[in-house]
Amino acid sequence: VTLPRFFAPSAKTGSSTVVLPADEAHHLRHVLRAGAGAEVAVFDGAGREWAGRVVASQKHGDVIIELMGELTPVAEPPVRLTLGIGVLKGDQMDAVVRDATMLGVSEIAPFASEHVSVTPRAWRSGASLERWQRVAIASAKQCGRAVVPIVSPVARFDELLGDAKVVRLMCVEPAAAGSQSRPLGAMARPSTALALIGPEGGWTAAEIEAAQRQGATLVHLGPRTLRAATAPTVLLSALWTVWGW
Amino acid sequence: VTLPRFFAPSAKTGSSTVVLPADEAHHLRHVLRAGAGAEVAVFDGAGREWAGRVVASQKHGDVIIELMGELTPVAEPPVRLTLGIGVLKGDQMDAVVRDATMLGVSEIAPFASEHVSVTPRAWRSGASLERWQRVAIASAKQCGRAVVPIVSPVARFDELLGDAKVVRLMCVEPAAAGSQSRPLGAMARPSTALALIGPEGGWTAAEIEAAQRQGATLVHLGPRTLRAATAPTVLLSALWTVWGW
Repeated sequence: VTLPRFFAPSAKTGSSTVVLPADEAHHLRHVLRAGAGAEVAVFDGAGREWAGRVVASQKHGDVIIELMGELTPVAEPPVRLTLGIGVLKGDQMDAVVRDATMLGVSEIAPFASEHVSVTPRAWRSGASLERWQRVAIASAKQCGRAVVPIVSPVARFDELLGDAKVVRLMCVEPAAAGSQSRPLGAMARPSTALALIGPEGGWTAAEIEAAQRQGATLVHLGPRTLRAATAPTVLLSALWTVWGW
Repeated sequence: VTLPRFFAPSAKTGSSTVVLPADEAHHLRHVLRAGAGAEVAVFDGAGREWAGRVVASQKHGDVIIELMGELTPVAEPPVRLTLGIGVLKGDQMDAVVRDATMLGVSEIAPFASEHVSVTPRAWRSGASLERWQRVAIASAKQCGRAVVPIVSPVARFDELLGDAKVVRLMCVEPAAAGSQSRPLGAMARPSTALALIGPEGGWTAAEIEAAQRQGATLVHLGPRTLRAATAPTVLLSALWTVWGW
């Protein structure tokens, strides 16, 4: 039997109890309707997980969980992988964040490149970032991960490229980069990597050149045109097949 | 510039014109608003594609396309792959059919296994099958394939297993089959394969045993729990990474 899992970022080894954040308390009380004595699991989002028991859960009070003992968390992938993704329209980013979390990324780095069609107004308030971070938490709860990936604030594509000191992979359409790209296949396993996926409109030639100057490897994922919101799932699945799950 | 693509199953090499099916005629007239003289591409769903030009497009008449010359279709994957999928709830099957088409399967074979929670009433009328087939056509148009995968009628799981005379892969949760399953990795490339993904509720022990008796290899896709509607995309991406795109 799988215990219902809750995100408790303030849980600490050595503490005997933890207070759930408001969202999680709501989930426990109003969705699962769990009361005092219920057995649960809590994870801190940084890779630790505990068996726990609900001590107190009053309608307007805190939900307090007694930490019973540390559990072995689900294994993390062998590479610390950041997914760089051009901001997509509407709720497509929610699907990308959900699936990338389930597929073990350490960080999701949305960026604004030339062909991103969403206006910066959409993310300036920070509400998008907060929503994406909530989606990552919900996905971590469901998929069993004890790690919640960081969702970074939207950066300019050149900033993202400049900051990264890691192996870079850039997904391109086969037609876009001609013979310069190769199908994703065997590749030595790095300890850290940044994988880049463009927005619906793809990359400009200048963006591809800039990435190549920074040492990026151009890869493609078969000859068919992939939906922008599905391409990250395809890329991540391919990478774990090559590097080990 | 990519030509707008239309599905014309009656197109034949040697014919000079083809009449579009009603759905496609509607798309051309009312969505793309293309009139006589417009340049398009048509594909027959079986792997052939032509450059074409709209000859006639009257409000209540047929849309007739003149076939100008055969085009080289987007390459198909190196394995004739059937995706066997436990029927999922709601519109999740639409997403599965859409993404499996984009990922190059030859056939989608929905099945009813023990833990399928959708009642047979949902698919008995044939309306679901028709909808899934329309989704496959729409996805083929968008991803550039000249092949439309066949969506078979919903079969019982044991019928599907019994009929198939091909390499079988069965995706299981790592916990479900213990040490009997291995992470999907290197594997010789067959010419034909059947890959099986269970419904939300997973497989029964008897179903896993039945598949093993028929020679199925049990594989898992990492230690995290995947959403049922995303698991096919993960599996197919992993298989093409191993077998070539």
